[in-house]
Amino acid sequence: MFLSSLKRVLVGNPLTTAAAKHERLAKIPALAIFASDMMSSVAYATEEILLVLVLGGTLAMQYAPEIGIAIGLLAAIVATSYWQTIHAYPSGGGAYIVAKDNLGTLPGLVAGAALLVDYVLTVSVSTASGVAAITSAFPSLYPSRVAICVITVFLIMVANLRGIRETGKIFAVPTYWFIACLALLVGGGFYHLMTHGAPPAPDPGALPMQEPLTIFLILRAFSGGCAALTGTEAVANGVQYFKPPESRNAGITLIWMAAILATSFLGVTFLAHWFHIVPRAEETVVSMLARVVFGRGWVYYMIQAATAVILLLAANTSFAGFPMLAYLMAKDGFVPRQFANRGDRLVYSNGILILAGVSCLLLVVFGGSTHALIPLYAIGVFCAFTLSQTGMVLHWWRERGPRWPSHAAINALGATTTGVVVAVIGVSKFIHGAWIVVIVTPLLVMGFYTIRRHYETLARQLSLQGFAPPAIGRHPVVVLVAGIHRGVVTALSYAKAISPNVTAITVDLDPTATSRLQMRWAEWAPDVPLVVLDSPYRSVLGPVLQYVDQMEKQRDGDYMTIILPEFIPAKWWQHLLHNQTALLIKGALLFRKGKVAISIPYHLDQ
Amino acid sequence: MFLSSLKRVLVGNPLTTAAAKHERLAKIPALAIFASDMMSSVAYATEEILLVLVLGGTLAMQYAPEIGIAIGLLAAIVATSYWQTIHAYPSGGGAYIVAKDNLGTLPGLVAGAALLVDYVLTVSVSTASGVAAITSAFPSLYPSRVAICVITVFLIMVANLRGIRETGKIFAVPTYWFIACLALLVGGGFYHLMTHGAPPAPDPGALPMQEPLTIFLILRAFSGGCAALTGTEAVANGVQYFKPPESRNAGITLIWMAAILATSFLGVTFLAHWFHIVPRAEETVVSMLARVVFGRGWVYYMIQAATAVILLLAANTSFAGFPMLAYLMAKDGFVPRQFANRGDRLVYSNGILILAGVSCLLLVVFGGSTHALIPLYAIGVFCAFTLSQTGMVLHWWRERGPRWPSHAAINALGATTTGVVVAVIGVSKFIHGAWIVVIVTPLLVMGFYTIRRHYETLARQLSLQGFAPPAIGRHPVVVLVAGIHRGVVTALSYAKAISPNVTAITVDLDPTATSRLQMRWAEWAPDVPLVVLDSPYRSVLGPVLQYVDQMEKQRDGDYMTIILPEFIPAKWWQHLLHNQTALLIKGALLFRKGKVAISIPYHLDQ
Repeated sequence: MFLSSLKRVLVGNPLTTAAAKHERLAKIPALAIFASDMMSSVAYATEEILLVLVLGGTLAMQYAPEIGIAIGLLAAIVATSYWQTIHAYPSGGGAYIVAKDNLGTLPGLVAGAALLVDYVLTVSVSTASGVAAITSAFPSLYPSRVAICVITVFLIMVANLRGIRETGKIFAVPTYWFIACLALLVGGGFYHLMTHGAPPAPDPGALPMQEPLTIFLILRAFSGGCAALTGTEAVANGVQYFKPPESRNAGITLIWMAAILATSFLGVTFLAHWFHIVPRAEETVVSMLARVVFGRGWVYYMIQAATAVILLLAANTSFAGFPMLAYLMAKDGFVPRQFANRGDRLVYSNGILILAGVSCLLLVVFGGSTHALIPLYAIGVFCAFTLSQTGMVLHWWRERGPRWPSHAAINALGATTTGVVVAVIGVSKFIHGAWIVVIVTPLLVMGFYTIRRHYETLARQLSLQGFAPPAIGRHPVVVLVAGIHRGVVTALSYAKAISPNVTAITVDLDPTATSRLQMRWAEWAPDVPLVVLDSPYRSVLGPVLQYVDQMEKQRDGDYMTIILPEFIPAKWWQHLLHNQTALLIKGALLFRKGKVAISIPYHLDQ
Repeated sequence: MFLSSLKRVLVGNPLTTAAAKHERLAKIPALAIFASDMMSSVAYATEEILLVLVLGGTLAMQYAPEIGIAIGLLAAIVATSYWQTIHAYPSGGGAYIVAKDNLGTLPGLVAGAALLVDYVLTVSVSTASGVAAITSAFPSLYPSRVAICVITVFLIMVANLRGIRETGKIFAVPTYWFIACLALLVGGGFYHLMTHGAPPAPDPGALPMQEPLTIFLILRAFSGGCAALTGTEAVANGVQYFKPPESRNAGITLIWMAAILATSFLGVTFLAHWFHIVPRAEETVVSMLARVVFGRGWVYYMIQAATAVILLLAANTSFAGFPMLAYLMAKDGFVPRQFANRGDRLVYSNGILILAGVSCLLLVVFGGSTHALIPLYAIGVFCAFTLSQTGMVLHWWRERGPRWPSHAAINALGATTTGVVVAVIGVSKFIHGAWIVVIVTPLLVMGFYTIRRHYETLARQLSLQGFAPPAIGRHPVVVLVAGIHRGVVTALSYAKAISPNVTAITVDLDPTATSRLQMRWAEWAPDVPLVVLDSPYRSVLGPVLQYVDQMEKQRDGDYMTIILPEFIPAKWWQHLLHNQTALLIKGALLFRKGKVAISIPYHLDQ
């Protein structure tokens, strides 16, 4: 009762299935939900580029704007590509669906595995980064960072268990606040440049060259910046959450999102270039930029706070994406069916709970510091992009609708570009963790196949084709007794009601008690024979199973019933004061074919 | 299967009840089992006296022999008193039985609570001290001390689960080895004194006086030394373990034990006095004495090793005493009945397991350092002594057998003396932990009464006096179905076999699936009506319980059966791939009177 009340307070009252249509999102809150992951990457994407370029010295730093523009173009390609996907798959077209439909089951499952892992990593990484932003501002919280991470994940989980529309309301304010902060930062930066002019260029030898300036270094910088694109998948997978017309609304949201992302990312990257910002371990690029533009005033602290909040909320995107993908895969029988159940608030609760559990586990295991996991999840995302866009090329080719060559060309461009990105990240980051993806993905895919095979053989084994129902009729019923009391007499009445063939058995643990039982038996149950089983080793389970197995040999019927009289104590702790023999016997009988174990409850009042 | 094999390897094959008589102990191994706790206290009892006396300076140290003699006398009084108890209670006469029989239930339960706690503390304290002796010799093991403590307790537990006679064999060698070492130490010490003479007395001002030399200081020193007497209880509680004639053998063992204890304790105390040994934190009194007498040779190391081993084995005494006391209290209904079950090796396994579990918990919580708990357990033991001996005085007075006044006088002396000891320890150690005893003991006693009351009301509620067995006959049977397959058809056959009044119900979670089910139903089960339950919130449990409750109102019968078709997967992990709704429904029905829930298993082959 207490747990049930707690659940109602946390997640709200249940919603009817008929209310499902109303749990759809207008574009404004939808943007807030699906944007946080993508937008939060503005906080670190520019930094990821500069951190690689700085290894090549002052000269290499000059390439930042070009790389920024390349990633902006990549964002446009990916967004356009997904816009096509959303219209081609109005019921939800994530990489899993698109790859499975067009490329076959195996590529679909690879995309699914990559995405499931990515969703988990997004939650862990975003939460850890967001909490790190907070603990950097308030160092006294640093020792409690793991607890703060776990509490944060818990709060996001509860928000999501309440249901997606309310989640939208909760998250809309900080997301738009962060977008406003970015607009302020970029606008303020350009105003500062126009009024004060750019600071003088540094001496070309100011930064030492630690690595030669090769095309490989540029590609690594580019792949670091690609982290900006994680999160695009969420809209395509969540088309169903939008108000009708779903495809149109989802498509428009996606384009808005990509435009805001590209603008703010390019703004930050260009400003960082013009202000000659050099990345440092102690301070983020966004923080340095905000400090240069606004000084250490309230505007600076507001931007820092918004950055911390958006990173925490980025984790929320996965709570929309993961359960939906798990639902789609569960419908196909590749993950346990429970993921297809809608909870009483119309959300896929099991997916939400598992996602929160696994990501909390990662946070605890990695001590709230998951910086090493960041490259991992970029690989997975781009792997899924590549598979999905390759699938779309085949889709257009098969359909050959109007203007199919231009559609196919857009997706082919996307597939090629993201494929190159996968190769670049994979090669440059292999020893830094990309090998984990190589191990986990095949294991997951094997698991998906095993689960699917189980459901298939299950259906075959349960099929009614050529099945003859068992003849039960006058089947033997055995009542296990340890004494004679109200519970036993009730159980005997029940046994006699369900079959004329009733035997009572008792295990002789104490000869005195057994002979007293036999005497009282004649008085209370003269019509039921009482068989006394020897138990030299004082076990109850052993002799009972032996008797059941002997009976099995003697007869040819299919089924046999074993009745266990059980009294139900009035209070939970009273269970501790009784042997749990009945439970043990039921457990053992479960693995014997054709044995039905019945507890006949007798309820105690006090 | 694996667990069961592991159990057989660890604890051996089961023993028959008929073998019980043979699991009795001759006096030699019995002494080994019951002596380790008492004997191990020689390792620290003298030190406990000197540690208090040293506070009073050199002059105070002169009182050690007198205090030693007083404790020797106390040992004689307690042993004589318990020898009388053993003969008066040949079936086992621990403080619990004696206090309960003679003083009433409440004093008996207080004694029982004190002893149960003491047994647990003995295991924790002895193990921690023994391991501390080992880690002092091998400092590299110090970081692993908690693990070593837990492993030690585990090994002693396994030895005890194998059965008491084999335990005797395991423990006989080191116990007698320790006794031999003590004889060697005391004999060698006296020989050294005779051949070399006593070392010169130190200057009277050598030790500064930190506390005034009052009678209170002397009493504190005396109460510290009383730790030597813990363990006497074990023989009286375990009379049943001795070979017949039990009382005579147990009595003789007790007198041997007390004599060996008193001799070696007095020997160590006098030698420490004559050699002017001053206690230090870094080295034990026994170690200093052995070093002075034998030098740092192999004899010294042998004595140290024997001391370490005996401390670890002392914990074993509780594994004989605790399960036996728990058994006695379980027979009276004051602790859960499971403690009265004999395991398949004829020992009271549940008591052994609980004792090991709780003492390991204490060891882990206190980080393997339970020195603070040592005074606690002396209080409990002397409290039990006092209650038990007061009970014996009343026993003799009531029986008024031959020479009863002298019997009563002996026990009265014992009761008075140990009562004074309780008061002294209680007052001098109250803030150092005696208050814990004041809290835990009443809580345990309240628990005992609550448990007893439950068993009493249980018996009354189950009594057949005036009970009319329920009429079951043509009772309604409801089969819950989610589809139609072999498992469902089997369950329907079973339902039709046990009652002519069968209804099938299904919860409508998906209208398409429900109408498909209705179509197939007509083909496979035309004779059973199928009721479709609405479920606006997508719950299965809710509508089923609502239906069951409605049925309840409509009819006047006593019982109703709910059948749940269940398929049993071939492999355990496959359970994870299915909803556990049946379990949930059975759990909910358990709390509704007159509802019988039956799972009809259908076994899958793969």
